Order: sequence, then C-alpha cells, then structure tokens
Amino acid sequence: MKKPLILVTNDDGISAPGLKALVEVASEIGELVIVAPDSPQSGQGHAITLKDPLRVHSAPTYNDRFEAYECSGTPVDCVKFARDLLLKDRTIDLCISGINHGSNASINIIYSGTMSAAMEASISGIDSIGFSLLDYSWDADFEQAKPFIRNIILQTLEHKLSGTNLLNVNIPNVKRADIKGVRICKQANAAWSEAYVEATDPRGGKYYWLTGEFNEHDSDESTDLWALKNGFISVVPSKHDLTAYEALEQLHWLNQ
Amino acid sequence: MKKPLILVTNDDGISAPGLKALVEVASEIGELVIVAPDSPQSGQGHAITLKDPLRVHSAPTYNDRFEAYECSGTPVDCVKFARDLLLKDRTIDLCISGINHGSNASINIIYSGTMSAAMEASISGIDSIGFSLLDYSWDADFEQAKPFIRNIILQTLEHKLSGTNLLNVNIPNVKRADIKGVRICKQANAAWSEAYVEATDPRGGKYYWLTGEFNEHDSDESTDLWALKNGFISVVPSKHDLTAYEALEQLHWLNQ
Repeated sequence: MKKPLILVTNDDGISAPGLKALVEVASEIGELVIVAPDSPQSGQGHAITLKDPLRVHSAPTYNDRFEAYECSGTPVDCVKFARDLLLKDRTIDLCISGINHGSNASINIIYSGTMSAAMEASISGIDSIGFSLLDYSWDADFEQAKPFIRNIILQTLEHKLSGTNLLNVNIPNVKRADIKGVRICKQANAAWSEAYVEATDPRGGKYYWLTGEFNEHDSDESTDLWALKNGFISVVPSKHDLTAYEALEQLHWLNQ
Repeated sequence: MKKPLILVTNDDGISAPGLKALVEVASEIGELVIVAPDSPQSGQGHAITLKDPLRVHSAPTYNDRFEAYECSGTPVDCVKFARDLLLKDRTIDLCISGINHGSNASINIIYSGTMSAAMEASISGIDSIGFSLLDYSWDADFEQAKPFIRNIILQTLEHKLSGTNLLNVNIPNVKRADIKGVRICKQANAAWSEAYVEATDPRGGKYYWLTGEFNEHDSDESTDLWALKNGFISVVPSKHDLTAYEALEQLHWLNQ
C-alpha cells in the first residue's frame, strides 16, 4: 500500500528537538517532506514574508533520510513553499507541525507559528495537526508523548477530519502513565497582559522587553485548559473562518 | 462631555497616508493616542516580538497634536504596548486600525497586521475596528471613505458592540456616491495559492519571491466579497475563538 505523504514543519526551527521527535514518529507512518524555518520563529503567528525573498536550502539535519529543507521565512512561508512549489503536483495527505516546545492551548493559538503553519495547510483543505508539549525547555522530554501522537496521526489518516481541517493538540508534561486520555475541547477564554521590562542601552536609548502574564477567564470543564490541568491531552478542532456568527443579528444599527 | 479615548494603529507604518486619513476622521470624535509601527508591517498577522526588545519613540508626524509613538515592533506589539504600558491606568473606549492600503476581506484577515492589531485589542474586551480600502497604492484616495468611517466609529461608540468585540470593515474603491451602503457579512471562503518567482543573486544563490493568486470558493450573497463587488461596505463581526464547534461531535473516534 502506498504510504501517505506527510508534510512536516514547526516554528522552533529545523534544529529543534521537538521537530526531531515528530519526524521520528511520523517516519514510521508516511513518506515525509520536511520544510522548517532555518531559525526559531516562535510568536510569528500567521506572518508571511512580503518585503524580502525567501532562501531555501536542503537541510543537513534530515536530508540523508528525507526530502528536507530549511527556509529563511516564517512557518507559514514554509507551508506555502512546500504546498505551492515543492509539492504542487502531488497530494499532501496530512500536514503536521511541531512538536512545539510549550503550550499552544487557548488564546496561544493566535500567536503560535506552529498552529499558523498547520492552519495555512488547512486553509487549502489539507488535514492538519499542530502538536505542542507543555514544556518550554529545549531539552523537554518528548518520549512520553510519542505514542499518543502516533495514535492521533494514524486515526486522522484513517478517519479523515470532518467539520474542520485543523486540530490543535496539546499534551501535558507528565509521564506516559499519568496521561488520562484524549479530550475533544473548545478553546478556553484567556488573554495575555504584558508587563514591559525597560532597559537602557550604552548610548542612553531605552528599550522594552515583552513579558507576559496569562489570565484565565474560563473555568468550564469543556475547555483545553481544563483538560490539560486534569491530565488529558486536549484536542481543539479549529478553523480559519473568524466570523462571529452570533453577532450578525446584533449589528442591525449599522445596516444603513 | 468627556471625549472617548481612542487608540489608533495600523500596519502600513506611522507615515502611511491611510493612517493620516483615519486620524483626521477620529480626531473630530475622540481623544487619540496613536501607536504605529515605525516601518511597514503588512502581512505580519498576529506576530509578536519575542527575541528582540522594542524601541518606542515619540512620532514627529503626529506629536504636535496627539500623544503619538512609533514602535519597532509589529502591529500587535503596538497595541500591547499601548494597552499594557502607556494606557494601563486608563480605559480605552475604542481601538481603530488602518486605514489599510488594500483589502482585508475574506481570508486576508488571517494575514493582516491591521486586523491582528484590532483583534489584539478585542481579545482584552476593547471594542475594535479594522478599516481597509480596496486600493493597494500609497496614494489611494481615502477621502471618499471618510464619512462612512466616521459614521461607523460614532455608531460603535454609541451602541457598543455585542456578540463580538471586533469588526472587519472593508470599503470599495469607488466614489462616495457609488457606495450603496453598509452590509453585515460573513467572511467569504477563499484562499491564496502562491507562485514563486525564482531569481539568482550575484553569488549564484537562488532566492524566491512570494506572488499570490487569490482563489474564491464562495458565491454566497451573504459574504464580504459579494458585498464589496456590489458596491457595499462590508462589515464582518469577527472573533478570536477559533474552535470549530461544528466539529466537536464529529471527532468521537479520537475520544479514547
């Protein structure tokens, strides 16, 4: 049987251990094409590169075993380049992004390069999954999560997604035996508020570092944050239609 | 009566004519604080600056009349800086972003720095509006759109938004008399596919320019693209909860 074609990307960059873990899992399932940023791109959201051209090189980290490239652009650039140039004559069966070092649950999906890359593939109808482990460190232990990721990939290939083309999967940073299972969730309502750390450069110029505080506004048990706190892997079916349908009827005062 | 406090930003940068036009309209309505990128930031989506600090300077273009700053970061950084540092002890009554040079209708909302800036404010509960004119040129004629923008701002301040905190407003590039009115719409289903223009630098290195083609997949009369093609201003109430609720029940095969 022909192996499914799986596009693999991330936002932490071609050398990230999280990408390596995802490649290890996926290489047992499908034929992989890897296109990842040549440098870390966390927090890049759905940014694309318009003012500069892209540079794309074969990626020594992986090119002994796979078709693999590193790209100077954002995560979304990587997916566009793979989909519309490298693989334009082929059908991508699945796009997987990650494993992200750190949470992309709740409002983090908006800022996440990992999830934006997966969303970019989903916009064109490709089933796409972003995977994140709730450990920001570079030497996070991805081993615990691997069998669950393997299952989710296999099941998605078998069943195909419906009602969505995009899954936001977050995995608690606990031992395999302590993971209670998978929960299908909604995105929790939360927001970052920022404190800025001010500093002064040697020439007297002020500059500001972003440092955020995460504020949860949702204690609902159907959310991804609840699932993660209670030892479950959270799966949020997600979409790129941002219409607030519930508001369409409420804006009649603007109809003029 | 106390004037409403209006935060003004954009993604085309502090010197953009579209920002100037928006400031002219809004300055007759409220007290303005302007924080805009110090260089063009189109296509930055919801990117934030994590690896570098921000530089923020008083903006000579506007600081004779308003509290006005130019910021080295993305549009979303501008809103975070304004909300969480400059104005942290005040209540922002409205955030307006634009006027963007070019369309942010349909899927463009995802890539747009203009809309992402407005969304960032809306995430913290601030009523927010992104304005775009369907003319990409730097010398676009914003005069025709001004009275409509004025009306939308005034009405939003009066009624307050409900069911959403975010409006995506796009304005056709026609004479005032040819604008047929305002339509509340849903986001049209469309996607970009990219052709890449390949070139070679003087040292033999290849590089690639992104060039997109816009593919519409939606002929529904309730969409923003339909409204714009038929001479209406489109207003799409939008949101940051990306949950595909319609898919929650369909993923039972993942519940394990």
